[in-house]
Amino acid sequence: MTSLGRVAILGTGQIGTMVGMALRAAPGPGVDEVAAWDRDSAAMDACLRRAGADRLLGGPEEALESDLIILATPVAQIVGLTRELGPRLRASQVLIDTGSSKLEVVRAMQQCVPEGAGAVGGHPLCGGSEPGPWSADPALLKGATFVLCRVRDDPLSRGTAGLLVGMLGSTVLELDASEHDRLVARSSHLPHLVAAAVAEMSCALPTSALFSSGLRGAVRLARSDPAMVASFVCANLEEVRAATRELGLQLERLLAAAASGEEYLAPELEAARLRALEVGVS
Amino acid sequence: MTSLGRVAILGTGQIGTMVGMALRAAPGPGVDEVAAWDRDSAAMDACLRRAGADRLLGGPEEALESDLIILATPVAQIVGLTRELGPRLRASQVLIDTGSSKLEVVRAMQQCVPEGAGAVGGHPLCGGSEPGPWSADPALLKGATFVLCRVRDDPLSRGTAGLLVGMLGSTVLELDASEHDRLVARSSHLPHLVAAAVAEMSCALPTSALFSSGLRGAVRLARSDPAMVASFVCANLEEVRAATRELGLQLERLLAAAASGEEYLAPELEAARLRALEVGVS
Repeated sequence: MTSLGRVAILGTGQIGTMVGMALRAAPGPGVDEVAAWDRDSAAMDACLRRAGADRLLGGPEEALESDLIILATPVAQIVGLTRELGPRLRASQVLIDTGSSKLEVVRAMQQCVPEGAGAVGGHPLCGGSEPGPWSADPALLKGATFVLCRVRDDPLSRGTAGLLVGMLGSTVLELDASEHDRLVARSSHLPHLVAAAVAEMSCALPTSALFSSGLRGAVRLARSDPAMVASFVCANLEEVRAATRELGLQLERLLAAAASGEEYLAPELEAARLRALEVGVS
Repeated sequence: MTSLGRVAILGTGQIGTMVGMALRAAPGPGVDEVAAWDRDSAAMDACLRRAGADRLLGGPEEALESDLIILATPVAQIVGLTRELGPRLRASQVLIDTGSSKLEVVRAMQQCVPEGAGAVGGHPLCGGSEPGPWSADPALLKGATFVLCRVRDDPLSRGTAGLLVGMLGSTVLELDASEHDRLVARSSHLPHLVAAAVAEMSCALPTSALFSSGLRGAVRLARSDPAMVASFVCANLEEVRAATRELGLQLERLLAAAASGEEYLAPELEAARLRALEVGVS
């Protein structure tokens, strides 16, 4: 397999638009066309103007004319579109998504996509904190991890998803959907909620003169698209809850060390610093 | 008053070094000399090589030859140096510090600095996440807020501190020490602990392929100097504890909204997003 054929992208926010831009800019005969749709017509027009699509679709069902359908909406809509379009997929057509919570999506795909057609859960780990098609930067896909969660073990899905990820310049990481959700709750979903909580707490500051660079960094993730974050948090609520409890225990541990004295807290912070450096340079 | 005279900086980490660099680069006859000392001789040498000082001192007591003594060590050492040097200050000498917790420092100054000499608590809200003299960037002081906490109401302290802050290019914000500590626990101290806790939690990730840009941002503050963070957290532990409880309540509120559905969580996240934008652009 050397071409994705006709591609449809449903959802032209930051991720959908950057995927379209990357596919259209990919060298070789990898894509026949990229068609796009979003229920927000302004976002759809912006995707076209950013060269994220060759043409726009009149509605999501027109994606059924394509060989590969990429769902890049918030998670709840991904599940809804999977239920709507999945049963109508023909043999050789493939459905993939880019949502940040995977178990609900993969289950919907298992239930709705007929044997013969392909389906795979996907999650590109990239994106800046500013939402929307105007923030789409296809360079962020280069070298990024693109998690793939198997729906069924079929060569069609595997080949198509591998080709797509390769054309984006990303690297495949295969994970079980529930394992993905457990890990991403800790690495991403909880940090999004914490940034929002710290932003809310900052409302108690009486003057913007107290906004430090540390605070700016701590609230940066809260600048993400609220609909997108709400959707993946709600789709992964039990794991996010468990991660929140773990954060509480870690903070209790650090406060207990602080109560014992600086000489107890500093080694804990040094361990965290070394880990933060590992995360930062990767 | 148009000159700070002879200045001594005790503690040549990131902040002490950047203050020294800024003072030596300031135009006009504002400073006769900057002398520096650190108990870490490598940090002291680095400060000299970065042009953060004209000369090095043999020990902290030699700072008593200067007109202005700036304490830029971790908070516990600021308190210790205040107790050691404060009683030996002569009339017209002024003591100021740059620590991130102020109540303990201001109380020590009130107890130890004799009438006639000057003393004021200071906290420049700047600094990158990488510690040490090699990360010192005096440009960060330009336009930064420099909190001043009154020790006594004397014209000497007020005039000297105002001149210092002006020469650094920073802006004075006067705050009561306990009010400072309450606010900074929420805007800075807690975010430092949260970043460390998230970094620790990330140790459970089985591969660096799962390090997203969101995670990198969330752990960035954990790259700060552990001794410095431990010192200001321990000096402000009750307020940090209260802020941690508030964070827990905010997270509970967001999780409760999520349990009700996306349409309840999204407006909360939108409010946080607007606040994060305010914090980010300031």
